[in-house]
Amino acid sequence: MIIVAGGSGSRMGAELPKQFIELKGKPILMHTLETMHDFDAQMQLILVLPEDQMDFWEQLCYKHEWRVPHDLANGGATRFLSVKSGLELVGGDLVGVHDGVRPFVSHSVIRSCFDTAAGQVAAVPVVPIIQSLRRLNGENNVAVDRSEFRAVQTPQCFQTHALKSAFAATDRTDFSDDASVVEANGIKIQLVEGNAENIKITTPLDLELAGLIIGRRTNSN
Amino acid sequence: MIIVAGGSGSRMGAELPKQFIELKGKPILMHTLETMHDFDAQMQLILVLPEDQMDFWEQLCYKHEWRVPHDLANGGATRFLSVKSGLELVGGDLVGVHDGVRPFVSHSVIRSCFDTAAGQVAAVPVVPIIQSLRRLNGENNVAVDRSEFRAVQTPQCFQTHALKSAFAATDRTDFSDDASVVEANGIKIQLVEGNAENIKITTPLDLELAGLIIGRRTNSN
Repeated sequence: MIIVAGGSGSRMGAELPKQFIELKGKPILMHTLETMHDFDAQMQLILVLPEDQMDFWEQLCYKHEWRVPHDLANGGATRFLSVKSGLELVGGDLVGVHDGVRPFVSHSVIRSCFDTAAGQVAAVPVVPIIQSLRRLNGENNVAVDRSEFRAVQTPQCFQTHALKSAFAATDRTDFSDDASVVEANGIKIQLVEGNAENIKITTPLDLELAGLIIGRRTNSN
Repeated sequence: MIIVAGGSGSRMGAELPKQFIELKGKPILMHTLETMHDFDAQMQLILVLPEDQMDFWEQLCYKHEWRVPHDLANGGATRFLSVKSGLELVGGDLVGVHDGVRPFVSHSVIRSCFDTAAGQVAAVPVVPIIQSLRRLNGENNVAVDRSEFRAVQTPQCFQTHALKSAFAATDRTDFSDDASVVEANGIKIQLVEGNAENIKITTPLDLELAGLIIGRRTNSN
């Protein structure tokens, strides 16, 4: 599994990148890697981080005495380039790409994505859209039927050869996710059901919600 | 402002409808009405409730010694019919329609919606889509550019004559929101910026998030 943290432009400035913010006393990124390790302790974990965050990450691992085995790859200027970097380290027939700030993906979703990719090349977890949607069209906008749309989560899972071929086949680096790269190379994407708690922690409100989710999990143990 | 609570199928069964669940010791619906009353104490508030929830609502008002002035209208089998019912009570040149389970709309968003509707007939608050989107198409699905889409919130605000005309002009009752009804009658919908906290409380996770938001507000006072 390639775990992507800190995409384009994330630099260690005044504000701590989201992946390092602590939840229950531990950086979000550690929770995410632990989720994958708990799912399958044999799974290869490839963490893609901006080069200038590597030292800080090592300090965090030392400070937290944190020893989940993982490989490291230098991130690029875009998500596409970061995943491409991680992809060079991948062994095995199947590979997933997961956001570093999605610690709450369920084991059953991870399993469904890998199982589906094993049989049908490419699979992504999706959830229904709750809100009404409008589509912008120049100066205009129009109501669209939300039931025709799905919101995409990660891990996005693939047969490794298909992901490598897709990344090698294009010069575009502006893809918003990895399924889009594979789709652009002619592969059909299979949809599997995601889990509602599998949020991408990107806003202060998300962070508070993440605190709630992790608190609830701890309490139910 | 028409406040719509408990759309199609909501009945007082084993599970308490969301609008009556308490946040900080008070039903969500009371928070929502208070938000509008705090914005403008002169605003006409029309609460649309399923007929079989009316007694319970009155008991709640009595129990909480809650006296925000409001009119009551019986809800219908769909959102369309509920709004149509509330619309019969509307006085004034402008009208908004707001979800009963959106207590956290900001005053500035309410103001923007009414101001824009006053000049340009119809306005809805929207926020960007954070997640990657895919569109279903029969057996297939395809990545779409999320920057072309917006998620729609409420209040949806209109010149009263336009909303009444639109509701009178159609036999369809399956519209997902009120702007769609007006749009189907040939009126262009204006988009204004919504606020991130203006969530529709529909899932247990939403409810927990709502508890956080209201706690944060209380603490910052």
